[in-house]
Formats: sequence, C-alpha cells, structure tokens
Amino acid sequence: MEKYFKFKKEIISNEFVSYLKTNNSAFENINFFGPDLLNRLEHFATNGKMIRGGLVLLAQEMFSEKYTPDGIKVAIAIELMHTSLLIHDDIMDNDYTRRGNRTIFAQYIDFAEEKKLSSPESFGINMGICVGDIGFFLAFSLFSQLTAPPETKSQLLSFFSKEMIAVGLMQMQDVYFASSNSAVSKEQILSMYKYKTARYTFTLPLVSGAILSGQPISNIALLEKLGESLGIIFQIRDDEIGLFQTEEEIGKPIGSDIREKKKTLFYTTLFQKVTEDEKNKLNDIFGSQVITPAMVRYVKELVISSGTYAVISEYITELSHSAKKIIDDLTINSEYKIILNELLIYNLKRSS
Amino acid sequence: MEKYFKFKKEIISNEFVSYLKTNNSAFENINFFGPDLLNRLEHFATNGKMIRGGLVLLAQEMFSEKYTPDGIKVAIAIELMHTSLLIHDDIMDNDYTRRGNRTIFAQYIDFAEEKKLSSPESFGINMGICVGDIGFFLAFSLFSQLTAPPETKSQLLSFFSKEMIAVGLMQMQDVYFASSNSAVSKEQILSMYKYKTARYTFTLPLVSGAILSGQPISNIALLEKLGESLGIIFQIRDDEIGLFQTEEEIGKPIGSDIREKKKTLFYTTLFQKVTEDEKNKLNDIFGSQVITPAMVRYVKELVISSGTYAVISEYITELSHSAKKIIDDLTINSEYKIILNELLIYNLKRSS
Repeated sequence: MEKYFKFKKEIISNEFVSYLKTNNSAFENINFFGPDLLNRLEHFATNGKMIRGGLVLLAQEMFSEKYTPDGIKVAIAIELMHTSLLIHDDIMDNDYTRRGNRTIFAQYIDFAEEKKLSSPESFGINMGICVGDIGFFLAFSLFSQLTAPPETKSQLLSFFSKEMIAVGLMQMQDVYFASSNSAVSKEQILSMYKYKTARYTFTLPLVSGAILSGQPISNIALLEKLGESLGIIFQIRDDEIGLFQTEEEIGKPIGSDIREKKKTLFYTTLFQKVTEDEKNKLNDIFGSQVITPAMVRYVKELVISSGTYAVISEYITELSHSAKKIIDDLTINSEYKIILNELLIYNLKRSS
Repeated sequence: MEKYFKFKKEIISNEFVSYLKTNNSAFENINFFGPDLLNRLEHFATNGKMIRGGLVLLAQEMFSEKYTPDGIKVAIAIELMHTSLLIHDDIMDNDYTRRGNRTIFAQYIDFAEEKKLSSPESFGINMGICVGDIGFFLAFSLFSQLTAPPETKSQLLSFFSKEMIAVGLMQMQDVYFASSNSAVSKEQILSMYKYKTARYTFTLPLVSGAILSGQPISNIALLEKLGESLGIIFQIRDDEIGLFQTEEEIGKPIGSDIREKKKTLFYTTLFQKVTEDEKNKLNDIFGSQVITPAMVRYVKELVISSGTYAVISEYITELSHSAKKIIDDLTINSEYKIILNELLIYNLKRSS
C-alpha cells in the first residue's frame, strides 16, 4: 500500500509540475511574481505525500481498472486545493515551518527582509493570502480541461465545492475554538473530525475518482462512508500520537498537544470521566508552558484508569468494522481490497 | 445607462440572495458559522453597485436580445468572486470600513470583542481569510449549475480562472509596491491598470456574457479591447479624483492619494517631466503626513505646467477613440450602443 501511494505520487507529482509549467509563459507575461509563485508552489506541494491525489487514482482504478488523464487532472486539482488551504492555515496558525521547510508566507517574509522592504511580517502575510487565492483559481481551472461527460463534470464540480465549503466552515470553527475558553462538546469535535479530516482527506478524493468512473449513487454512498471511517480513525490515532508519543518518535517536543490544550476527543472524554480533584489537576497541566514527562505520564495513566481509552478504543473498533464491511461489500478486484485494508490498518496502527 | 445598471442590480441582487438562501440549510447543518457567514456576505455584497454583474447581462442582451438564467448565475459568480477579493484586500490594506460599513474581518474583530475571545485582531483576520476562501468556493460552485453547452462552460471556466489569476498576481505586485521604495515604471503601472482594473472589471464580465451568447472569437476580441479601454479610462479618472478632488466632492480627506504616495500614472509621468528642484519639492510633499490645500494646489499646477496633464489627456483621448470605434463596429442594436457610449462618457467624466 505504501509502495502504491509512493508510485502514484511520482506520477501525480510529475504531472503537477508539468501543469504548472504550462502556465509559466502566461504567468511570466503578467509579472515577476508569476513564475516565482509557480516555483514556490511546486516545491511546497511536491514535498508532501500526495495521498489525496493517490486516492483519486485508486478509486478510478478500483472501478475501471485504470486511471485516466481526467483522473490525473482531478488529483492535481485536489493537491493544489490542499496546498492553498495549507498556505492560508499556516498564516492563521503562525507556523513558519512545515515538512522541514519555511512555509510560503514565511518565505515572503524572508524575501522582504532580503530586499529591505518595509514591514516584512505583513508583507509575508499579504503575499501568502494572494498565493493561496491563486492556487484555488489554478485548481478550478483544471475542471475546464476535463473530457468527462458534462453531467459528470457538473457532479464533480458541485461535490468538490460543497466539500471545500465545509472545510472552510470547520476552519472557522477551529479558529473560534482556539480563541475561546468555552467548552467544546464531543459532537462538535466529531463533526470537526468528519468534515475537516475525514471527508476532506478520504471521502473527497475517493468519491471524485468514483464519479469519474461513472459509479452509481449506491457505490458513491459506500465510499463516502468508508472515507469517513478511515478519516476519523486516522484523526484519533493522530491525536493519540500528539498526546503521548516521545520526542524521538515524532520529532516534536513531547506533550505539545497538552501544552496547546488541543481540543481532541481524548480531551473532552477525559474531562467527562474524571473527579473534580483530577479535573483541577488536569487544568493545571493542560495549557501549561512546560510539559514534563511526569505530566504526560499522569495524563496517560488517567486516560487509561478513567476508562477514556476503553471508550475511544471501542469507537475505533466500531469504525474499523464498518470500514471493513464496506471494503468486503465493494465489487472490486481483490488487489484493491488488499490496498484498502492495508490503508485501514495503517491508519489504525501508524506510530508517527 | 445608470438606470439600466440600477435595474439590473436589483435583479442580480435578488437572485444573489436566493442563491445564498439555497445554501442556508446545508450550511446550517455544518455549524453556526455557516448561516452567520451567508448573512454577512449578503449584506456586504448587496451594498455595492454590482456593475460587473450588470455588464454580464448587458453583453448577453446585446448579442441575444435577452439574458438567461445562466447569465444570472455567472453574474452572481462574478459578484461573489469580487466580494471575496475585497474581503481579502481589506485584510491586506488594514481597512476597517467600506461603503460606510465595517469590513468583514473588522466585523469578526467586533464579534471577538463582544464574546471576549483572546486576540480579537488575529481572530478577525483569520476568519476573514476563511470567509474569502468560502466565497470563492461558492462562486465556482455556480459553474456546475450552468445549462450551457459543455464547450461554452469550459471556455467560460477557463477564461474566468485565467483572469482571476492575473488579478491575484497584480495584487501581489501591488503589495510589493506598497512595501518597496524602488521606482515603478510607467509600463508596470499600465499593466496594473490593465489586469487589476480594466480586464477584471470590464473585460471579464463583458466577455463572459459574450461567451454565454456563443459569440465568435472576433466579437470576443472586440469586447476584450473595449473592456480594456473603458477600464483604463476609469482608472485614470479615478486617480485624478483621488489626487485633486476636494473633501466635499469625494467624502475623503483631500490629497489622501498624495499622502499615501500612491503609484499612479500621474505620479510616474510627473516625476519624469519635472526638474531636479521640483522633484525634491515633490518628494517632500508625497508621503507627508499632513497634506495642505497649498500642497495639493502645487502638485496640480505642476501636473499642468509640466505637460503631464496634456500627455495623459492625449492617452485618454486615444483610448476613448478606440472604444468608440469598437462600439460603432459591433453589430448590435442601437439601444445597446447608446448604453455603451454612455458608459464610456460616464468613465470619462464622473466626478466621484
């Protein structure tokens, strides 16, 4: 499965670079920032794993035995959308590095400092906003190049926009949570996981591939559900890693999610299950500037002894059974069932 | 002509509100910010004149005697795109009011203050970025609803994306100019006028309407050129107003463009035409914190005595002849020729 996505990434990545190159001369004619921006987009985007793009091709292959040039275009569009969202997110989160490189707005801050421009910080933010916007336009432009039947194209564009809107609304909620002290309910967290991770990362590409393969609504509904289960499992596992993994394992300081008081399913469930005394102790730990290994150990033990871990594990097991059942039910070749099952296991077990 | 656009605005505005309303229940299902955002978008967008949307319908009527539901959808898409760009621009320019109301990010700053959220300023900026992004997605979603033939839709989506990309790149250049002290050439200014005002405000809607009416490439080329001429005239007249109009006439402090050292065609041409002594004096005036009526008078007199005004007037006359000739050459009904001519005269003469 990892080999499959690595291989697909290479294909998408090459076509991604070609697509940007076809725009180069038009961009050059407008101004200096055109080719400069294409160059930055290329490095930023190809630095990722392009799982979303790979899932488009996987869904197409599952149903039609092969992916098409349209599939590649939609894969590139998804990767471009994702890149643009990340560019805007990095501004919102004030993140200067991603995947070991300077984020786009941070690159423009550097640019401003080199050229001795006034207010490098706002220059970087403003340029970052523009680059994200242009990335969205570049992505939508790809839809005009599809050769699929008109109904397929409309269905795809409509589904695509709907899911992107949901992600945007969830991002607003996330911004709100980060600035607010009010309690976050379990339902709010699960709906965030559903729209911002699961549907966006798994459902959107899988269903896009299925739409391109002309699949009936019944199969599309199965893939929607599969994407949601895969994605929520992925997110919960991600939270677990962020809470408890050691520095060596994830390359980040331990307990960073505890320090940031990140509103996860573990966080809300834990607070529901502990005594007042323990709650007070947790309130001292979550959000504290320095997180010691003893603090992490305390939280971890409480997650287990309070039954939080058991409840969440049970939920993951349910999701994983539902995903397995869908994979079994799909009328696709066994090689694709193997890949989907491996993806499920990867999301369940991954350690970084 | 003004009556025509007022009438069209009413139509587009009603359909704009209906379109947002059709999204309301889906948005409500996602979270609180969905309906809240639709409400803010509605008030912000319908507060404008919707000239761009009106031009789409005008172009359709010119060629087909009537506008279609597709025309309305494209008009709404253009207005939504424009709204979203303004939302992002207001963040970049740090503008808290527009058309007498709080800008969108400023509204979210107010929201944060009311709810006592932490860091209202960044909360407002982050929410504003999200709202702009969602506006773009809502706009592109409309393209999936068009009933035009597939080639028409592709042509439209491709043209649309291309022009939006050009606007984004020009916005980057504008951000750069605002932070940089390096000289701006006449060519750079004219290319800014072409892409950021003329093609975006006039060419994009006119050509979109023509594409929907299935016009041949020859007519589309005429409208492209017409839009450019109309728009550059509009922009230069806008600059003149910003430089010399009195406070009562435009409702802004006099000489605000002089204080902001705005890089206009007047500015670069003037600096090319004056003596070293005059240049030094101008350098003291442009960018000064307080602009007196005497300063404005000095700049105005120099614009005339240096021949700057004559050169620019000549350029405007050229553009206006070219526009008139295109209007004459178009095979459209005389009532539409009258409207286009009135639009040309409006752009030439408007005083606020």
